Amino acid sequence: MPESFYNTSLSLLTDLYQITMAYGYWKSGTAGKESVFNLYFRKHPFQGGFTVACGLSAVIDYLTAFSFADDDLHYLRTLTGTDGRPLFEPGFLDYLKNLRFSGDIDAVPEGTVVFPNEPLVRVRGPILQCQLLETPLLTLVNFQSLIATKAARMRLAAGSDTLLEFGLRRAQGIDGGLTASRAAYIGGCDATSNVLAGKLYGIPVRGTHAHSWVMSFADELESFRVYADVLPNNVTLLVDTYDTIQGVKNAIEAGKVLRSKGYQLSAIRLDSGDLAYLSIEARRLLDEAGFPETSIVGSNDLDEYLVTSLKHQGAKITIWGIGTKLVTAYDQPALGGVYKLAAIRNPSGAWEYKLKLSEQAIKISTPGLQQVRRFYDEHGFISDMIYNEETPPAGATTMIDPYDFTRQRHFSETTPYVDLLEPIFRKGQLVAGQPSIHAVRNRVQHQLAQLHPGIKRFTNPHAYPVGLEQQLHQLKTDLILQLRRQ
Amino acid sequence: MPESFYNTSLSLLTDLYQITMAYGYWKSGTAGKESVFNLYFRKHPFQGGFTVACGLSAVIDYLTAFSFADDDLHYLRTLTGTDGRPLFEPGFLDYLKNLRFSGDIDAVPEGTVVFPNEPLVRVRGPILQCQLLETPLLTLVNFQSLIATKAARMRLAAGSDTLLEFGLRRAQGIDGGLTASRAAYIGGCDATSNVLAGKLYGIPVRGTHAHSWVMSFADELESFRVYADVLPNNVTLLVDTYDTIQGVKNAIEAGKVLRSKGYQLSAIRLDSGDLAYLSIEARRLLDEAGFPETSIVGSNDLDEYLVTSLKHQGAKITIWGIGTKLVTAYDQPALGGVYKLAAIRNPSGAWEYKLKLSEQAIKISTPGLQQVRRFYDEHGFISDMIYNEETPPAGATTMIDPYDFTRQRHFSETTPYVDLLEPIFRKGQLVAGQPSIHAVRNRVQHQLAQLHPGIKRFTNPHAYPVGLEQQLHQLKTDLILQLRRQ
Repeated sequence: MPESFYNTSLSLLTDLYQITMAYGYWKSGTAGKESVFNLYFRKHPFQGGFTVACGLSAVIDYLTAFSFADDDLHYLRTLTGTDGRPLFEPGFLDYLKNLRFSGDIDAVPEGTVVFPNEPLVRVRGPILQCQLLETPLLTLVNFQSLIATKAARMRLAAGSDTLLEFGLRRAQGIDGGLTASRAAYIGGCDATSNVLAGKLYGIPVRGTHAHSWVMSFADELESFRVYADVLPNNVTLLVDTYDTIQGVKNAIEAGKVLRSKGYQLSAIRLDSGDLAYLSIEARRLLDEAGFPETSIVGSNDLDEYLVTSLKHQGAKITIWGIGTKLVTAYDQPALGGVYKLAAIRNPSGAWEYKLKLSEQAIKISTPGLQQVRRFYDEHGFISDMIYNEETPPAGATTMIDPYDFTRQRHFSETTPYVDLLEPIFRKGQLVAGQPSIHAVRNRVQHQLAQLHPGIKRFTNPHAYPVGLEQQLHQLKTDLILQLRRQ
Repeated sequence: MPESFYNTSLSLLTDLYQITMAYGYWKSGTAGKESVFNLYFRKHPFQGGFTVACGLSAVIDYLTAFSFADDDLHYLRTLTGTDGRPLFEPGFLDYLKNLRFSGDIDAVPEGTVVFPNEPLVRVRGPILQCQLLETPLLTLVNFQSLIATKAARMRLAAGSDTLLEFGLRRAQGIDGGLTASRAAYIGGCDATSNVLAGKLYGIPVRGTHAHSWVMSFADELESFRVYADVLPNNVTLLVDTYDTIQGVKNAIEAGKVLRSKGYQLSAIRLDSGDLAYLSIEARRLLDEAGFPETSIVGSNDLDEYLVTSLKHQGAKITIWGIGTKLVTAYDQPALGGVYKLAAIRNPSGAWEYKLKLSEQAIKISTPGLQQVRRFYDEHGFISDMIYNEETPPAGATTMIDPYDFTRQRHFSETTPYVDLLEPIFRKGQLVAGQPSIHAVRNRVQHQLAQLHPGIKRFTNPHAYPVGLEQQLHQLKTDLILQLRRQ
């Protein structure tokens, strides 16, 4: 999202408690304590085996523009506590007035496949600033990663077919729709129907016509003829307004006229009924009439499961229009990303490591300045090891399953790897380049190609191995034991 | 959403096919044909018995600002067809440059309870304009009505308890979060954590602190003492960072210090574990320590079913924090609103009525310039009758169930009623006042009070009767028969 898209400061796009905590840090003299927070999720969406990281570009825009405007401060001045007196002292609002982001951000590049517990974004800086960023960073990364992942699943189902994202009318508001279109393209869609997303992000736009076009004419054939006449180089005809098979026949008639003028009938579109049966019948009619090049578009509440099923049934659809189920991530409309404190530098200059306890092991956070080392071989990715940058693995190393310490993997010093988190901001300055949306989209497909097919299947996928480097595992275990003793 | 919130024209916030159809109408000389479209939904969300209409205020902002900017037209100029040549003629882009909304809008006021097949918004004007508005109107009304409805259900579950909306971090992008906060407040929440929503919409904001606040201190008690010290008039302490019962005891200690300074411990918050058990234990500890006025806030993936269940279990929670399940409408993240052509004025000046056929009766649209007449008596709403304004009911009238014509209801000419759709725009000019968000919120509760409890229950709710006025029913039947014969 270009920073200029919003005509207002977004620095208040956060939960009130971030601001009251910021006030608490400021007031108690601890605002500048250096701290480290990790943004990660605990479970893949859609009961799947992978997640596509997305949203970093919006995070960069957000941080670059981060600054409280006068009217933000004026608003904060009006907030009162239970006794009707102001919540914040004027001195704090003056402090916010001059506040700019001055910390470091490291993050996994957009379009990377990621796994539970891996930091997607790591924020290091004065604790007051890190705290304020929790909510906007989660908002931006949770939603975009969710939609990019859903789109990547649709792409796996569709194979090399064309995938069109049509979801704006069911999206969650204006930029709910815009960012869904962006993330869907990154995840693997070929184009969107959302014209503003096309303009803002450079995504290809595609479209046909609606039932209302057909209904506005005396009969369907006339509506097709007029459409083909006025937009001869963009003719996809929606054939199910009245009777689908008759609609295909009318489309063929319009296609013949179009051909006589030197143009082609690009496609017909089916938007209701039994898409397997109707597409096979339509294909036969089109082929018999000499239109083997005319494609069939299918739509109607499709998702990755329906696309898979239709292909198994031999449906003759090669262009899929996907809307509601994609842009709302219908079967799981939220990714439960969290943002947890992992270390604070104490007055002596040493890191004090932090974790959040829970009765559920999956909810216990991991301490440390986390980095992710991804090992690979000639077949693709082997496993990911989370380590603490303060105690990096040296040479051969052992990785331990965080939920079963008896499951360990050993890597020799010659196993090739790449570290996933890259420097994005240093001391508040942007230090990373921003790849084009098309490059990010390509990255997703390259990354997915490195995963074993079992990890990408929809039902009971194989779990890609992710563990903690042995020193980090020991640190986490020691901290848990210490906290449980207290 | 204030019109100035976005720093860009939103006129391209539509599907490409709306613009290609607009081009088709323009090119074929039919752009000015007067037409009527109705925006409605076919089924309540959440298997519920009612829906709360919301989003009209955003529609008004959108229409007021509607105008293609130069860079919109520049972008449209770059679009090409399958042959690489421009999709649109320059003359069409000149036409769009001067286009302003010039039609009529009638709509159900925000905060009204509505039912399947009832027009929430009716658009009448040149067909080209009506068509362009399909997508943005659906985007704005679908999402906001969905969330307002979900919030109204939460309110029914919570009774007179306090309901806080905490969902920003899981919301669908920036204004996904903002509009969710607005619609949630309208539906019945008391406050939001979203500070920007508070600033923009005047919604009360509320907040506590996060686990990271506690973790940033050497121990929990110290973290509570400092928080109470710096924000004495806003003290809600989160007690589940390490051990919840010990956390309650620490909160009581901090509360005693606070009291000695003349302030009160407002609340404690439980965010994990068995909320029924823990809240009962916490209540007992608080009461025994002399803190009967301290409230207990409960949160953790709550929805209307969990709130109902917790209350049945005797949970001592009186403030509910609701996030993900509310702002994403988790169990049904899209309202399937549609926008259908219902009439076109033919060259002779008469209305030609239109409907969309389907094999499924529920998907057949209804023709006409629809208005909704709501009959009521001293107990509340009795039933809603959709009629065609061109053939209004005169005196006594009969309403027919659209899916079973043998189910009919008769109303005498003295039955009191109100017509739901009100004039919003006339010839492109805004003619309606805009109630405050607080007035809209009150309207929801007044409306719900007029519904029989059976309609409001969550499981197998009673269906509120909605039918077609007899002349409209006849018109629809005749049209279906005529189309099926073709």
